[in-house]
Amino acid sequence: MTDKKLVLGMGMIDGYGGLHGAWRAPHVNPGTYADVDATVRHARAAERGKFAFLFTPDFPAVRGDVEHSTISNLMDPLIQLTAVARETTNIGFVATGSTTFQEPFNTARQFKALDVLSHGRAGWNAVTTSDPAVAANYGRPVADRAERYQRAHEAIQIVQALWGSWQQDAWIKDQAANRFIDPTKLQPVNLQGQYVASRGPLAIPPSEQGQPVVFTSGGPSPHLLSIAGRYASGFIAEVWTIEEARAQRELVREAAREAGRDPDEIKYIAGLMTTVAPTVREGLDRRLRYAGEVLEARLPHLGAMLGIRIDPARIDEPLTPEQLASARAAPTDPRSSIALEVARQGWSARDVLAHGVIDFHPTVVGPGKLHADHLQEWFEAGAADGFWVTPDIYEDGIDAFVDEVVPILQERGIYPTEYPGTTLRANLGVPRQYGPDPRVT
Amino acid sequence: MTDKKLVLGMGMIDGYGGLHGAWRAPHVNPGTYADVDATVRHARAAERGKFAFLFTPDFPAVRGDVEHSTISNLMDPLIQLTAVARETTNIGFVATGSTTFQEPFNTARQFKALDVLSHGRAGWNAVTTSDPAVAANYGRPVADRAERYQRAHEAIQIVQALWGSWQQDAWIKDQAANRFIDPTKLQPVNLQGQYVASRGPLAIPPSEQGQPVVFTSGGPSPHLLSIAGRYASGFIAEVWTIEEARAQRELVREAAREAGRDPDEIKYIAGLMTTVAPTVREGLDRRLRYAGEVLEARLPHLGAMLGIRIDPARIDEPLTPEQLASARAAPTDPRSSIALEVARQGWSARDVLAHGVIDFHPTVVGPGKLHADHLQEWFEAGAADGFWVTPDIYEDGIDAFVDEVVPILQERGIYPTEYPGTTLRANLGVPRQYGPDPRVT
Ligand SMILES: Cc1cc2nc3c(=O)[nH]c(=O)nc-3n(C[C@H](O)[C@H](O)[C@H](O)COP(=O)(O)O)c2cc1C
Ligand SMILES: Cc1cc2nc3c(=O)[nH]c(=O)nc-3n(C[C@H](O)[C@H](O)[C@H](O)COP(=O)(O)O)c2cc1C
Repeated sequence: MTDKKLVLGMGMIDGYGGLHGAWRAPHVNPGTYADVDATVRHARAAERGKFAFLFTPDFPAVRGDVEHSTISNLMDPLIQLTAVARETTNIGFVATGSTTFQEPFNTARQFKALDVLSHGRAGWNAVTTSDPAVAANYGRPVADRAERYQRAHEAIQIVQALWGSWQQDAWIKDQAANRFIDPTKLQPVNLQGQYVASRGPLAIPPSEQGQPVVFTSGGPSPHLLSIAGRYASGFIAEVWTIEEARAQRELVREAAREAGRDPDEIKYIAGLMTTVAPTVREGLDRRLRYAGEVLEARLPHLGAMLGIRIDPARIDEPLTPEQLASARAAPTDPRSSIALEVARQGWSARDVLAHGVIDFHPTVVGPGKLHADHLQEWFEAGAADGFWVTPDIYEDGIDAFVDEVVPILQERGIYPTEYPGTTLRANLGVPRQYGPDPRVT
Repeated sequence: MTDKKLVLGMGMIDGYGGLHGAWRAPHVNPGTYADVDATVRHARAAERGKFAFLFTPDFPAVRGDVEHSTISNLMDPLIQLTAVARETTNIGFVATGSTTFQEPFNTARQFKALDVLSHGRAGWNAVTTSDPAVAANYGRPVADRAERYQRAHEAIQIVQALWGSWQQDAWIKDQAANRFIDPTKLQPVNLQGQYVASRGPLAIPPSEQGQPVVFTSGGPSPHLLSIAGRYASGFIAEVWTIEEARAQRELVREAAREAGRDPDEIKYIAGLMTTVAPTVREGLDRRLRYAGEVLEARLPHLGAMLGIRIDPARIDEPLTPEQLASARAAPTDPRSSIALEVARQGWSARDVLAHGVIDFHPTVVGPGKLHADHLQEWFEAGAADGFWVTPDIYEDGIDAFVDEVVPILQERGIYPTEYPGTTLRANLGVPRQYGPDPRVT
């Protein structure tokens, strides 16, 4: 092993946590969605654990079962993270911002302002938006993929050019000489795309890390890889197995190479959902307590994943030897091999579901060592440079992770005991960048 | 006199102050533009003086002589004010946001998020943008007036509808009953305009004041009055004389009446620039110290305003009796009558200029009593409901105003000694509003 360390980010969804029903836990204030004091508390807890960044996904529309679930977004990612910036010192802020529905000039301005005021801790998760409910909020239909990704290329190029348009040594601010700025070093970018354009310049000086870090997220389609390879320093993934992750990570790295960049400069960040508890049993019980009905309703889905029928009356029994013998992991769903593995350990069908085998990301339930083992195994297998962790219930789940998992990772020498620096780039391990990357053509 | 009190807001331009050259003052950090610690310090100083709000104009482009002057905007109004929100308790935040270049859904979301996290202290100065340099940053030409104002009507209606789309009692958050939201009380707005549209709903609950306060600003054109009359609770004016202000204020009030509203619910806010000093002489010297060259260069302009020629060699002399006798205030420029009045007091031409007679707003220079007299005179003449004050140099000019002017206003009973409340609406004296105003048709 080299002395390379893994990087952690924390997924901040809606204020409650990754577990369905987290908002209902008695120790959780059900008004947390609108309570930025809680966001600050959660950010500080993550900072105690040396997390490199908070990551806020964003699908700005009312979607899904909001009667029993929650609004699965922050009120506004950038505004809410900005409110937290001054009450933290090292943790970064990676907010999702749409290239489809935001003006590049506004994106460039707001993210760079946050970058300056947080002293170099901002990141932009540049996504294209394909959700019709979101598009409707902007009064538009969903554009086809080619158009969305063409616009994304244009938008990111304009944003990065605007970021660099205030040259690093433009700000003279010499009071005696009466020279505030060297106007020759504040130059328009004059970029005219097919969908978006901007003249510039943007009047914001460099931050301590130069400019915000570009992230992107999604499945490894050629469209997305061409974005990631050219512009991104972080790739937020949704991936279930080590094999899948290694393959995806290699695609992302190859895309960077093809664009003329060093693949070590793009960090592949795999997802993980966590329930930290003294024992697996206690962890499962915690999950069943809040998400029990929702998990139970997934029983037919579990049967389908394994190619067997599971009798609802036998949900509290382990699968029978016959069921286990005929069960097959569905090749189209990487989660089914995990489900099969858990079922073979002898858990009841309900407990298999409580292991989070049907969720957005791999889930670890149990003592800190299990979580550390998962992270170490993936990291050492080259399946990820880091992880974005979504604790089950933020209110105590972040602290549990920080107290029970982080020290083990540190003892094992694969996680920093102190922040490498005060900027997001330093803590992510990516180099300073200002303006467009000159290697990318 | 009734016991109605005047309202004060503070104009936050670029971090330095309203005086040309403020950034060069030795007690000012020339890096203040990028230093949000300073914004916090200035906001707190204004809060000590019971200012109802900070107002940030915004013309997002590099304009004018940035080599010797500054960037005349905050880095980003909404982001920078959000950073200040949690370090203040009562002062409101009125950020300018363009109806021309912002998506209504984004405007609605970001301002309401700030409103919630500041516990009811946000305001939106809804403007149309006619500056070609700004338009170019969005890759577009300037639209004609009719189009800009049509889009402004649509945008403000959509924003207000989105604000109301999460009904006030929609948020059940009953953990035991497992009901987070009543989905029948979170309803789409389905507004389709000619230029902008949105389906909604917006997933943000009411703040302590309901929703952000809409302001607008500009000259009293019929276009702008129809915006102000229908939607605005604050009108940010640029006006030089009591007569002009009374007439404008009456137009604004009449527009509100015509739209079906109570004219007392729209506050007409006149501008004022201030230099507080023990004596007028010391105040003029302070202004000449930093803005001397710029003021001197305005000498021909002063001559033109008064219809006389002023010899540059005699800039340090009072106008001669002959000059004073032939001087005429230019009827097209309301500032010229003020200039003539000051000249008649016997000041040298340089000192007349140092009085700020050619500036964006009326300027008062001298001891606190002079400032209090100006405010009281205008207020009692029905020329304004309040004022937005731009101190010459924020770093010490806000404190000087708070220490020297505010106590006099309080003694005279025309200014509150405590904040009336904790929300912007309470401190402005305008009623709660949620969603569109039902009186406006
Ligand atoms: C882990 C992960 C996180 C994502 N986060 C977001 C997000 O927050 N907002 C968003 O609009 N899209 C997000 N996406 C991307 C969209 O889901 C994307 O549009 C989707 O992958 C469809 O792909 P396409 O754009 O290539 O058609 C995310 C994707 C993944 C895998
Ligand atoms: C006091 C005052 C403040 C203003 N602040 C802004 C501002 O911050 N940003 C902006 O784009 N327009 C602002 N405006 C409005 C524009 O200047 C406006 O476009 C201008 O009055 C031209 O009028 P029109 O839009 O009716 O053509 C302001 C106007 C005044 C009088």
